[in-house]
Formats: sequence, C-alpha cells, structure tokens
Amino acid sequence: MIVILKPHSDPEQLNSLIAWLEGKGITTHLSMGEDHAILDLMGDTAQLDADLIAALDIVEDVKRVREPYKKASRKFHPEDTVVQVGNTQIGGGSLTIMAGPCSVESEEQVVAIAKAVKASGATMLRGGAFKPRTSPYSFQGLGAKGLEYLKAARQETGLPIVSELMDISQLPLFRDVDVIQIGARSMQNFDLLKAVGRQEKPVMIKRGLCATYEEWLMSAEYVMAGGNSNVILCERGIRTYENYTRNTLDLTAVPVLRKLTHLPIIVDPSHATGKSALVDPLSMAAVAAGCDGLLIEVHNDPAHALCDGPQSLRPEVFDALAKKLFKLHAAVAELNG
Amino acid sequence: MIVILKPHSDPEQLNSLIAWLEGKGITTHLSMGEDHAILDLMGDTAQLDADLIAALDIVEDVKRVREPYKKASRKFHPEDTVVQVGNTQIGGGSLTIMAGPCSVESEEQVVAIAKAVKASGATMLRGGAFKPRTSPYSFQGLGAKGLEYLKAARQETGLPIVSELMDISQLPLFRDVDVIQIGARSMQNFDLLKAVGRQEKPVMIKRGLCATYEEWLMSAEYVMAGGNSNVILCERGIRTYENYTRNTLDLTAVPVLRKLTHLPIIVDPSHATGKSALVDPLSMAAVAAGCDGLLIEVHNDPAHALCDGPQSLRPEVFDALAKKLFKLHAAVAELNG
Amino acid sequence: MIVILKPHSDPEQLNSLIAWLEGKGITTHLSMGEDHAILDLMGDTAQLDADLIAALDIVEDVKRVREPYKKASRKFHPEDTVVQVGNTQIGGGSLTIMAGPCSVESEEQVVAIAKAVKASGATMLRGGAFKPRTSPYSFQGLGAKGLEYLKAARQETGLPIVSELMDISQLPLFRDVDVIQIGARSMQNFDLLKAVGRQEKPVMIKRGLCATYEEWLMSAEYVMAGGNSNVILCERGIRTYENYTRNTLDLTAVPVLRKLTHLPIIVDPSHATGKSALVDPLSMAAVAAGCDGLLIEVHNDPAHALCDGPQSLRPEVFDALAKKLFKLHAAVAELNG
Amino acid sequence: MIVILKPHSDPEQLNSLIAWLEGKGITTHLSMGEDHAILDLMGDTAQLDADLIAALDIVEDVKRVREPYKKASRKFHPEDTVVQVGNTQIGGGSLTIMAGPCSVESEEQVVAIAKAVKASGATMLRGGAFKPRTSPYSFQGLGAKGLEYLKAARQETGLPIVSELMDISQLPLFRDVDVIQIGARSMQNFDLLKAVGRQEKPVMIKRGLCATYEEWLMSAEYVMAGGNSNVILCERGIRTYENYTRNTLDLTAVPVLRKLTHLPIIVDPSHATGKSALVDPLSMAAVAAGCDGLLIEVHNDPAHALCDGPQSLRPEVFDALAKKLFKLHAAVAELNG
Repeated sequence: MIVILKPHSDPEQLNSLIAWLEGKGITTHLSMGEDHAILDLMGDTAQLDADLIAALDIVEDVKRVREPYKKASRKFHPEDTVVQVGNTQIGGGSLTIMAGPCSVESEEQVVAIAKAVKASGATMLRGGAFKPRTSPYSFQGLGAKGLEYLKAARQETGLPIVSELMDISQLPLFRDVDVIQIGARSMQNFDLLKAVGRQEKPVMIKRGLCATYEEWLMSAEYVMAGGNSNVILCERGIRTYENYTRNTLDLTAVPVLRKLTHLPIIVDPSHATGKSALVDPLSMAAVAAGCDGLLIEVHNDPAHALCDGPQSLRPEVFDALAKKLFKLHAAVAELNG
Repeated sequence: MIVILKPHSDPEQLNSLIAWLEGKGITTHLSMGEDHAILDLMGDTAQLDADLIAALDIVEDVKRVREPYKKASRKFHPEDTVVQVGNTQIGGGSLTIMAGPCSVESEEQVVAIAKAVKASGATMLRGGAFKPRTSPYSFQGLGAKGLEYLKAARQETGLPIVSELMDISQLPLFRDVDVIQIGARSMQNFDLLKAVGRQEKPVMIKRGLCATYEEWLMSAEYVMAGGNSNVILCERGIRTYENYTRNTLDLTAVPVLRKLTHLPIIVDPSHATGKSALVDPLSMAAVAAGCDGLLIEVHNDPAHALCDGPQSLRPEVFDALAKKLFKLHAAVAELNG
Repeated sequence: MIVILKPHSDPEQLNSLIAWLEGKGITTHLSMGEDHAILDLMGDTAQLDADLIAALDIVEDVKRVREPYKKASRKFHPEDTVVQVGNTQIGGGSLTIMAGPCSVESEEQVVAIAKAVKASGATMLRGGAFKPRTSPYSFQGLGAKGLEYLKAARQETGLPIVSELMDISQLPLFRDVDVIQIGARSMQNFDLLKAVGRQEKPVMIKRGLCATYEEWLMSAEYVMAGGNSNVILCERGIRTYENYTRNTLDLTAVPVLRKLTHLPIIVDPSHATGKSALVDPLSMAAVAAGCDGLLIEVHNDPAHALCDGPQSLRPEVFDALAKKLFKLHAAVAELNG
Repeated sequence: MIVILKPHSDPEQLNSLIAWLEGKGITTHLSMGEDHAILDLMGDTAQLDADLIAALDIVEDVKRVREPYKKASRKFHPEDTVVQVGNTQIGGGSLTIMAGPCSVESEEQVVAIAKAVKASGATMLRGGAFKPRTSPYSFQGLGAKGLEYLKAARQETGLPIVSELMDISQLPLFRDVDVIQIGARSMQNFDLLKAVGRQEKPVMIKRGLCATYEEWLMSAEYVMAGGNSNVILCERGIRTYENYTRNTLDLTAVPVLRKLTHLPIIVDPSHATGKSALVDPLSMAAVAAGCDGLLIEVHNDPAHALCDGPQSLRPEVFDALAKKLFKLHAAVAELNG
C-alpha cells in the first residue's frame, strides 16, 4: 500500500501515523520529494482500511499495490481449482455444460428437458425453483416443490443439479442440491455468502449487475473465508448504456479471472443477452476465450415458458450447439497446445 | 401494452394469442399496416409477462405503455405520502435531516454525536450496526450491541433512529428501531423486501448501485404489496464510468420520482461521493431540487472512524451546513410559491 | 412509428396532428382504449422527428417500430457487403487480419513490422500517422511523413494500408491510403463522415466509446448516404464502470450487427483492453463469435513504442496467434456448416 | 508519478530505466520492500508517457500523483478565471444565463426569443446554426444563415451570442460570434480544439457523453496550450444505464471542477434530460451547487421546434424560472457567506 502525503505535511502527524502503522506490524519507507512525499507500506496491509488512512489530514491519496483478496488469488494458489460435483468436474481443462429451464414448471417438464440435454452432452442440470423477479406480481417460482422436481430429474438422468438460493432461510432445502447458485442480485448479500461459506456444497457466484472483478472476487473470498473453497464464478453480463440486449456479456472476464484467480469460470450467455439467437455465437466465443463451462437455458416450449422465455433454446437447437461446443473446445485446446 | 407483430404473421397464431389474452380479461385492438401490425392491449396488463409474449414466433417486440407498479405510482395516489416517525414527519413539505455516524462504535460516541446533531437541527439519528462491507476482513459492525447504543442515544435526545437491516434473521432486533433501512446492495433482496412489507415499521429503500427508477419503484412496490405503505426512497449515487467520486449522485432522481411516485425522497450525498468536501454543495443542490430530506454522515473524529471516515463531516461543519439547509429550504419553498 | 396519446386528448389537436402527418404521406390508424389511445403511423416514418412529435401536448410517448437507418440495414440489403481492398477482400467469409504498430515511428520500423506480419499471414497493414491523444503534450504522430512510411511498407510487402483520418483538412493526404479509418472519438464527427462519404475509398468506422449499435449504424448511414457504400465497422470496446481494462470489449456486437447490417465487422482487442496478454484469448473469441477480421497491434519493440506500448504484441507472439486464428476460423466455419 | 516494480526485477533493467528517466531530468527515489519495490519519480513527470513505462518487463503498474493538466489546474492558477464576453462576465461570482432556441429557424424566431429572454434577465443568447444530428436525414441546421440571424438578434438586443462550431472549415464564419461552443461529440476532436486554441474568442467546451473530469480538463488544456485561456466548461449530462432521461446530469461536476480548475462552469439541464419539466428543479439545483451559469433552451413554439422540442421552455415559463434563479443565486451567495 502506498500513502501519498500532502506537500508540507506536519511532521508530528506523520510520525504519529508511522508509529500507528508500526504498532500494527507494518514496515514503512518514506520517500520525500519537492512536490510530494510517499510512504510505502510493507507487510500485511490487507488488514488496513485504506479509506481510514485516506481521511487523515496529512494524506492526499492511498493506493493499493496488492489485491485485497487472498484465498481467491492465484498468487497464493497457483494451480487451478477443480470442483468435483457428483460424477463430473468443473475446471481443470474439461468443458462443463449446465443446461435446463430458467424456471422449473413441473416434474414432467424438467424431467423431459433433463433427458434431452443429457442426450446432447450436458453435464449438469440447471433450473430455478426460487426466482428473483423484479415485480412482486410476477411468478416467483415453485420453491421447495421445484427443488423436488429437479431431484426427480437427477434421479432419472444422473445429472447433478444447480439451483439458486435466495435467502438463508431456504438453506436447509438445498442440502441435497449439488451446486448452490448465488444470483447476480445476491452477489453482495454478505450474510448469505457467509452462510454458504459455513457449509460444504459447491457455490456458484454469478457476477453482480455492476460488480467489478475485484468485488466479485471479494464475494468469493467471503465464501472461502468461511471455510468453503468450492467456489465457481459465473459471468452473466453487466449493465451498460447499451440496451439492445438485456445486459452486455463481458468475455474479457474469462482471461482476466484466469490470471487473477484459480477458481473455475462459467459463462451464461442466455441471461446476459436475453435473446436466444445470440446464445450460439456467444457460447462459441466463450469457449474460444477459454472458459470452463457454460450455463445455457433450454426449454421444451420456450414460447410458453413462465419466465425468461425469449432467451431459451429449444432442445434440438441446444443439441446442435452442444455438439459444436465440445468440438470447438477440443479444437481450441489443441490450438493452444 | 403494445405488441408489435412481425410482418405477415400466421393468422392462426395471432388468433390464438388474442384468445389467450381475452381469456385473461384483456381487450385487444388490432391495427394492420403494410409493413407491420400492432396489437394494442387494454385492461390489467400489469399481470402480463412482457418477455413471455415477446418470445412468441409472431411477435417482434412488446412495449409497455403503463408502468408496472401501482401502489407506488402517483397516478393512483395523487397526494404525497407523509411518513410519521416518532415526533417527526417525512415528506409533505418539511425538511428531514437524518444525521449520525456511518458505523456505531460505542455508546459514548453515538450519544455525543446524537446530542450534537440534535442541537444543529437534525430530526433523526442514523447509525450502522450491521455493516455491508466488501471485504470479509473489514469491520462488520457492532450488530445488536450497536442497535442498543442507538436506542440509548434516542433515549438521551428524543431523536428517532434509522439503521440498516441486512438479513431477515436480524428483523426481531429491529422491533424498536424507528425506520428500517434497506441498503443499496439489498435493494433487490426480494425476500428481505417481502419481510419488511409484512411488518409496520417505516422502510427506507436506498437505490441500488445500478438500479433504474423503475426497478427502484418496483422494490417499493414489493414492500407495499405486503401491506406496508410507509416507504421512503433514498438516492445514494449510481455507478458510472467516472471514478473521481465513489459513485455519481443522480439529483435528477428527485424531480423524476416526484412525478412518478407519492413517496418521500431522501438524498445521501455522503455515500454517493465518499468525500466530505462535496457534502455541502450537493446537500444544497438536493434541497434546491426539491428533496424531502438528507442523510448525512457526521462523526466526532472522522479521521479515526472505523469505516467510511473520508465522507463524514465534523459536528461543527455539520452545524453550519444544517443551518444553511433549513434556510435554503425555506427560501426555495418561497420561490416555488 | 407508434404515438401513444395522453388519456382524454383534445380531439381538435389530435385531428390537427393526423392532418399534418397525412400531409407528409403518412397513413395513420387510431386505436382508442379506456386508459390510453395509440396512433399507429405507416409509411416513410424515417423522415419524421420522433422528438418533435413527443413534444406535442397530447402525446405521452413515441416509439419507433423500424430502425432509422436504411442503406446500412440488412432488411433492405440481405446479402453481405464485401469490400475489395487492393488484392484482399473484407467480409464474405474470409478472415482479414490488419496488423501493425499503433503509431508509425520510422520507415525502418514500419517496413520491418510489415514484413513480419505479412509473413505471419496478415492481409493488411495498420499504422497511425495522425494520433488522437488525450494530452496536448503527448506525441501526436508523424503526420504526412508517417503516411509516406506506410506507403513504403506497402511497396515492400504488397499489403494494403489502413490509417486514421482525424480532420477533413488531411483528406488529400489519404488519397493513396487503401482504407480510411474513422477513430472512436470521431464516430460522430458528422462533417468528417460526410466528407469520407463523398469520396470512394473504403471507410472503417470504429465504434464510439459510448455509442449504441444504432448510433454506430447511423454513422455508417452518414457515409453511405453520401454515396460511399464501402463501409467497415470496427468494435473496439466501450466505456463501462470496470476499469481493470481500458475499455470493455463488446463481442455481442458481432452477432447483433450481423443481424442488423450487411456491412463487414472487424474487432480490435488491442485498444479495447490495453493489455497485450488479453489479445490472444479475445481474438480467438472474436473469431468464434463470427467476426470478419481483427485489428491487432504489433510492435517490434513494444516496451519502447512511443504510444500504446502495453497493448502491442511482439512479432513472434503475433505469428503464433495469427496461425491459430486462421485455423480456428476454418474450424468454426466447418462447425457452423 | 509512482512506478510499482515487479518483485525480483532484473537490476540491470532497473538501472537502465533509472538512467533513461534521469536523462529526461527526472529525479528518482527507490523504495525496496520484501514483496514489492516502488520507484518514486519527481520533476516534470507530465512529459512522461505512463503507458510506455507500464509496458516495461520490470514494471507492474504506474500511478500518477499529479494531474496531467497544468494551465487548467487551480494548483497553478488559484484565482477564478473570469471570461469577459461583450458587456457581460462569466465566472467570478455572477450568474450567467445563456438562453435561446436549440436550433435557429428564422430571423423572426430568434429575434423574438432574444427579446423575450433578455427581458427575463438572460445575459447571453444561444442558438444552433450548425447542428450535430445522429441521422443524416434530420435537419442539419441553417448554417451560415443561422449565424446571420443570431447576429441580427444581437443587434436588436445587445445580447452576446454563443453557437456551436462543428468543423474547422466553419471557423471563419465564427469571427463575429462571441463565444464558440464545442459540442459534446467534439470534445475530443483534437484538431478542432487546437484550431480554437489558436484564436482569441472565448470557447465553451461541453463535456463529452462519457468523458471523465480529467479528459474534459485535458480538452480545456488543448485550447489553453494553444494560447487561448478564455475557456468555459459546460456540464450537459453523461451517458449511464438509466434511460428515463436522455442523459444523467452530473451536478457533482460543479464542486469537483471548482476544486480542480479555475475555469467557469456552466450547466445545461435542457440537453441533459431532454425533458422541459425537469429544467426548473435541476436549474435550481445547479445554482445551489455553485455553478457560474446555465444554458437553457427557450422556444416560442416548443411543440413545433425543428429539433429538440421536448426540452425547450416557453418564454413565459423561462421568465418565471429566470427570476427564481437570480433570487436563489443571491440567497445562496448570502448563505455561503
């Protein structure tokens, strides 16, 4: 951490700051110039509150040199994390395809879709039981019953299931769910993050609508700080001024996160764009960018889906896409040597 | 709601859509042109899922004519809502000033600040007991003890208190808090909104970091749909590309919300900018724009505040500002006739 | 175009609006409901100013059904435009790779890079002679001399050249340049667009830093309206709140533009991210998304480049990337059948 | 400027960097820690290209301590700049109101509006002769004839005139215009900035749609570096995700710029919001925030304005607003002491 001091700072206040820092085990190094002075802090600076220091009278600005996350950082954990889910692995070179309906509507529906996507090569089944809806008047999901239908579909197909947890009170219902999804709107629900950090199920954290990479990794850090290191990150589009699509898919996140963290990275082109016609080209792009997997909405009757219909693929369209994606993944792996 | 149909739509599918809509009590009116056709829907269209209709093969686009919120809308409730809190009122022409520390640190601290801000004319005491912090390693607030200290300060000064609720499980602790604050990161925590909608305490909803006016009003609608109509809105800055300040305060929200809703509107310049030097001019601007009140951080020792120090005012600075704000409020009221 | 009327509009004003519209050859269709009325406009609505109509007392809102561009629209020109540049073609299924230094520094430099990138398979040479720089104190490019060096490099290698035009006064100097680039900051320099529309050289329009797809296509329309239909679009990142990278590359632009327009689409991952390490994965992603080509910065000594060094690749790194890209392009073409 | 070095940097490369910097007259100070090292640069660092240094193998990051602008900076020019325009002054405590039509339509129109706004207290007349329009099919302004009409209105009323310059080639036509406006879309048209920097007329620079404060001030620096120090800044809204209004007016710009620069600051609420009903409250807010003036659209027949009608005020509405603004300005001045 670097503290930029105001010109002509009061030496007494400066000494008192240095003493306070040294009391916390921080080593300081002062560099004094004509128009500014900087204080270079070394040691465990993650414990320091940069804003607090910036508020001091003698301080002009504070700049971090190191990231504020540790457990999620590749610097301290160079090898890729591979998350084991049922009989499948997320990360470590394989391509995970999580597919299924946005909303679980009935056992019949979800079992039919699960069979279809499994036949196409999907490795996990996704489906929403608790739905975060902008309007209190919209369908809010089947809740516990929806989770039961998902489990029935798992029973039929062997596909592990992933579903969104919206509130701590629902956690007991998720004991038999394979991966707990934290939705974009909950990415900074810190109590929820702590709660899923205290249990062992893998957690997939979707990126908040306007979350920076650092904030997203700090949310992963919350879960990992609680003791659960089975964390998966899912890019699902960010909010920008462009409103032709629902959000703007940020594929740069894939190589950037690859560098910053050891956690697996999934891409969700369905929610990002809200348009099923864009799922194919953007899934291809995500695989070529090096993601570990995709989250794709599939619905056997998209036009009558109870929610998010426009972004779902029909099973036959998904089938063609999934086949292409596995081939592309193999081709890219070969090209990247 | 207007449904724009694709050119040369299949008449059978069109008839089936019209029949489905009429089954829901919607009246339709078809306007057929050479290059497009539109279906105008009349009746209770708030029940319809625009995305679902947009997904139909024959539909090109769907545009809403009416807002999706009702209870929060000024159209159906023309008079301003005035929220009674203890011996003070929010809305209805008065100027509410909520002041206090970002974080409650000790009883001594919060009582001292409460006395100071009361003497300066503040009508409510704010203070964080449960703190949403980006890092799991940062101070997370004093929790229940912090609420006790706030109540002690209320006891001493008579100022009603407002504090942030982060999770449903903390709700019992807030039974004796005067206004429950829903933080920006919780604005779309729909289970939390439902929970505070089922109780009677006034609720102040801060705008999400990238929430539209409509989404924000839909969050108010969640609370009101539960039966609690004591809702206050608080603008606290939105995330933009400009990072000189922490966020970008959107004062346009004040007149826009005034038109769209009957709910009171508070402005928080402290969190929006993260810089105490900007609190004065932006508070003045907010009052001139017509807000119902301000949420201002005051700390008796900003440089040593445990969190968010840089954005807090010292009590003597706050005193001068509060006096100016009440005078400005009176002057603006006179000018606006 | 759909005009949404206020409830209980004055019939006289409505008749006068209808008469005015019909005077312009527009057919209208009125749909009258209980809580609103809409006027559906048919005919050449591109001539109408939506804002003007929206300003009328009786009008609540105006919504466009059709895009405001014509010549750039795929609806009126279903086949892909292929732009012939020297001995190479842009669009129509081939992969164009434009490579070269951000800034032309010397004849020696640009000739060396041109030879290297040609050997790697690049089909065009890019290089900046006139540089848009945020600071008046930064290097502003070699100007006319820079263009001469580019031509010398073309002479040596046969590669067509593309360079940025910043002001109309420089146009005579570009007579012998193969493709005129309009930079992101000039995307809405309408006089410049008109000027390049009045000449015949192909024009590559980079997307503005916060331009919507529609605004970008309207800039293409400016050039095409002047008579020049050799227009190429180049996605180069948009400005968002995320500042880990310089801008946020929007690869969704590729399939969206493919649908909206017949013009070729190039992607520039170098400028978008400002980090050379991200050029490889994002170039791969762009090809998989279906772009017609890439604009990649290559420098024989990136660390000493006079500008934008961090985003340039070394020739040997570019060589490996270019080889991968052509293979990936072939693989994707085969997969997409 | 602070250069953060990678851990274990090659000492030879480090020495070579230090030597290169010292050759440029920069003094360096090295601070070596366990996990990082920093090189503090002192002297005229504005000449250095931060990106170039950041590209070096041994460098992890570069952070500026000082702003890259000088002539526009308050640090080097503590007193407010006051721009004399005809018989009026911009800056220095007075309130400038520039009013007039978005587009000049006829001599009759502009003279009538000029008389009306002068009677209401406006100190300058604004009007567009050359109009930047997104569509090539929209009305592009009356051009030279429009400027003549503005001059006729000045002749009648004595109000100095301000109008937008779009291209260098139009500069000779502006010789008799009092203030040259650089539009938001031209804010980074660097050749245009240089051209108006080489002449003496005051220049008002509107903020670009997604320009940071620093970029905006760098555009002012371009003009001032050319020798013209009569620069005025105009906030006109930035592009955000919120699309209820055309743009988001950023009133934080007023106090921030007040601190960073000595140049006068004007606010344009008409263009920012695109809605005339918002002009009143946001003008009030801008004055309370401390701006030096306002740019307000007034039209004698807003519903039939050829462009931007919805954001114009009628003369009688403007009259009431202007009277309020002068009173508010006086009240705020008194309150701020």
